Amino acid sequence: MAEQPRTKEQRKADTLARLGAAVADVWVATTDGVRPFLVPLTMAWVGERIALATEGAAPTVRNLQAHGRARMALGGTRDVVRIDAVLERTIPVAEAAGIGEAFATQNDWDPREAGPPYVFAVLRPERIEAWREENELRGRLLMRDGVWLV
Amino acid sequence: MAEQPRTKEQRKADTLARLGAAVADVWVATTDGVRPFLVPLTMAWVGERIALATEGAAPTVRNLQAHGRARMALGGTRDVVRIDAVLERTIPVAEAAGIGEAFATQNDWDPREAGPPYVFAVLRPERIEAWREENELRGRLLMRDGVWLV
Repeated sequence: MAEQPRTKEQRKADTLARLGAAVADVWVATTDGVRPFLVPLTMAWVGERIALATEGAAPTVRNLQAHGRARMALGGTRDVVRIDAVLERTIPVAEAAGIGEAFATQNDWDPREAGPPYVFAVLRPERIEAWREENELRGRLLMRDGVWLV
Repeated sequence: MAEQPRTKEQRKADTLARLGAAVADVWVATTDGVRPFLVPLTMAWVGERIALATEGAAPTVRNLQAHGRARMALGGTRDVVRIDAVLERTIPVAEAAGIGEAFATQNDWDPREAGPPYVFAVLRPERIEAWREENELRGRLLMRDGVWLV
């Protein structure tokens, strides 16, 4: 059933392909300190950062501003890229021309057209793991403390 | 692009089909009170409960035992079933014959064969939402306070 485990190099290549893929959706988990939150958001991969687009008043943005951290997952449950990241900044879409352009190019919608309630939340990955099935749990760590291991 | 929004009745039927589907994986978000956690786990739908199988020492189980709550998601990022649930109990796999049987029947592996480190975490859904695209955000609430609205 399971194929041979991929090398770390292959996993990094697959991960970068997924982060930069056309129409990239990501599951974003945050916390308000009591409850877990989880929502699918569209992202862009810009300068080794993940830019999420959502409303500035959304729980995810509030949680990020209060606690600073997200754990995100791309892909299916049996082809996982998991990313722990810290919030670098949030920017109203109208003030983020470069990110806006990158986002609209990568995806099928442009948050700048959604207007003022929307912001980009820019996150810096600190830890990245990639695995498919059980046999890939070993060797899944690709980035630690913000540094690629391969 | 987007189809007509589904009725709540249709969404409930789709949700139940997904919860009972062969090989059901679910994204499980929990928190330790500081950080968000997120992991894909296999589940079984048993008596209106979600039974997750994982190691008893896993962060997800520790978080559930300390804080009681998970937010889970099934399906893709554009065909979402999202479930807020509370931990009812955790049971060593060896002591849960009924759940074990249901789990092995629904899925492609049997946690009872994994032995003592594995437990079932049984969660009671309190809130269930289902939506595909933007046009289904309205009408996405299917269960509130543990009661189906349709």
